[in-house]
Amino acid sequence: MRATIMYHAGDVRVENVPDATIVKPTDAVIRITRACICGSDLWPYNELEPTPAGRPMGHEAIGVVEAVGADVRTVRRGDVVVMPFAYSDGTCMFCDEGLQTSCIHGGFFGTGEVGGAQAEALQIPEADGTLFVLPVGPDDALMPSLLTLADVMGTGHHAARTARVDRGKKVAVIGDGAVGLCGVIAAKRLGAEQIIILGHHPDRIALAKVFGATDVVSERGEEANERVRALTGGYGAHSVLECVGADQAMRTALSIVRPGGAVGRVGVPHYAGIPGTQEMFYDNISVGGGPAPVRAYIKELLPDVLAGKIEPGRVFDRVIGLDQVPDGYRAMNERKALKVMVKP
Amino acid sequence: MRATIMYHAGDVRVENVPDATIVKPTDAVIRITRACICGSDLWPYNELEPTPAGRPMGHEAIGVVEAVGADVRTVRRGDVVVMPFAYSDGTCMFCDEGLQTSCIHGGFFGTGEVGGAQAEALQIPEADGTLFVLPVGPDDALMPSLLTLADVMGTGHHAARTARVDRGKKVAVIGDGAVGLCGVIAAKRLGAEQIIILGHHPDRIALAKVFGATDVVSERGEEANERVRALTGGYGAHSVLECVGADQAMRTALSIVRPGGAVGRVGVPHYAGIPGTQEMFYDNISVGGGPAPVRAYIKELLPDVLAGKIEPGRVFDRVIGLDQVPDGYRAMNERKALKVMVKP
Repeated sequence: MRATIMYHAGDVRVENVPDATIVKPTDAVIRITRACICGSDLWPYNELEPTPAGRPMGHEAIGVVEAVGADVRTVRRGDVVVMPFAYSDGTCMFCDEGLQTSCIHGGFFGTGEVGGAQAEALQIPEADGTLFVLPVGPDDALMPSLLTLADVMGTGHHAARTARVDRGKKVAVIGDGAVGLCGVIAAKRLGAEQIIILGHHPDRIALAKVFGATDVVSERGEEANERVRALTGGYGAHSVLECVGADQAMRTALSIVRPGGAVGRVGVPHYAGIPGTQEMFYDNISVGGGPAPVRAYIKELLPDVLAGKIEPGRVFDRVIGLDQVPDGYRAMNERKALKVMVKP
Repeated sequence: MRATIMYHAGDVRVENVPDATIVKPTDAVIRITRACICGSDLWPYNELEPTPAGRPMGHEAIGVVEAVGADVRTVRRGDVVVMPFAYSDGTCMFCDEGLQTSCIHGGFFGTGEVGGAQAEALQIPEADGTLFVLPVGPDDALMPSLLTLADVMGTGHHAARTARVDRGKKVAVIGDGAVGLCGVIAAKRLGAEQIIILGHHPDRIALAKVFGATDVVSERGEEANERVRALTGGYGAHSVLECVGADQAMRTALSIVRPGGAVGRVGVPHYAGIPGTQEMFYDNISVGGGPAPVRAYIKELLPDVLAGKIEPGRVFDRVIGLDQVPDGYRAMNERKALKVMVKP
């Protein structure tokens, strides 16, 4: 079968690899019908050291179940399923608590532990806990939005939850990538009164407004901080969704959050320590977040997707075949595409 | 009048100073009937640079109102009042939200902005918002416990709240000082199932057990972390109360908190950045806390003090007069006293 392998920063290839198979009785194999390229894939695309064995890429997918192991109970051949970026057994105490990303028997797709989703098919460990069966056919018109439940919509929702977004709150979203835009959707859905998007790309900002952003801050650095404070009555936002992961983004987050407020961070952190420890302390700021337990959120978000109340699938602005995946990486890295869908 | 002034690390004196007076119409003046020395006073006692003008010390007190300004409405001459370590107007949006430590017109006692409480009397800014009238006489037997509502009991409670202590949770408390011990009281009061105290002083540990600690960890460094993990089924505590403020204490906190858990920090941070950013992210740990809005917590905690359900006053193990304050600092600094009460 064909799959996407990265060997080095900038060197991503679609290659023939051994077919995905059932290894353990708790596995399933799915045929990928939709996958995508993630903003977080751009970190290795820019930084990966030479990796002779290659890293299988992709961690977001919808697929059709092709085979299940002998112990799989809740998923059947032919089911249309969404595959969260983390696999999880669904039975451990962390899964019970809705923190599937810390599952005792879990792990992450597209990191080398298991295969990647930018491929024709994929072995799914812990299939019962991992896969979520969708009540639609494999080519349903809602596919783009359903596909975001594998990562970006759940991740934006996690940023909003960990930033304690609630009715009437003033919210700032740092980053106008797919996760930031989904963060806007999540903030609106949770009842935020004001949603300020911090970003620089006119087309993405336009989409943020469609999703519910009430204000736009395109300045940078201290100017951006001042603008947010001015927009929020002088004190900053109750909730800041940090959807980038860069050092400057985290600094901005801590500068624009209001005393007693919360920063929810979902951008993979590319900084050493959380800065501004003293100010954060004296202002009683909390910082939370991490890899989103999107598996837990599908149940909450799916009805709104099916009802058309939220349309996170609008973040996709390019659809490619599997062989065009290297072009997709390039387009996203050059900010020529916001988010690329792959139809193997 | 007599008041405590610090001039340099180790150089704390009780001196004659001008009498406390009403300056603004929103002020009150209280005659201090009980004050104390705080663990946080030991930071300047060990680190204060030479300060020729001197810093008035003390931020915890109970007193009797001697005079009120023309605009004071809720506090009257003769009232017995508890004075939280921060003053606050009681009307701004942060006070409304219960975050009086961020009051727009607020500030902190014993920092030089206003006077200190280790004195015969004290000018109280924003008297209506700051002072809480107690339903007892000035020499009530409950005075020690009531006095802790000015800081350490409210601060321990804040650590527990920001660490999200709740029924059935496994809790670790770092530090066996007065705040840590009050953190144990708070954790038990909020329904924690397991309360592990990390500390090294046998007498304090004994008191922690009286207050509800279920386990004691006296090891240090990685050994301590391993012990906590062993005591909590391998994964650490849901809630960690960081009641010290030293770099090593924060490292320990992040090492012993469970995925999805929370660290509530109330020790004044003496470290540059929050370490372990990556692990904290991948485990979805949140860090919150700061100066406790003890004014907000008095209403919640006072009934339990009056009913004798909690006895935080047991942290006091020495009572001195005002002139003995320098000895009190020395005793606390040498760990010969846990917490010193001052009766001016």
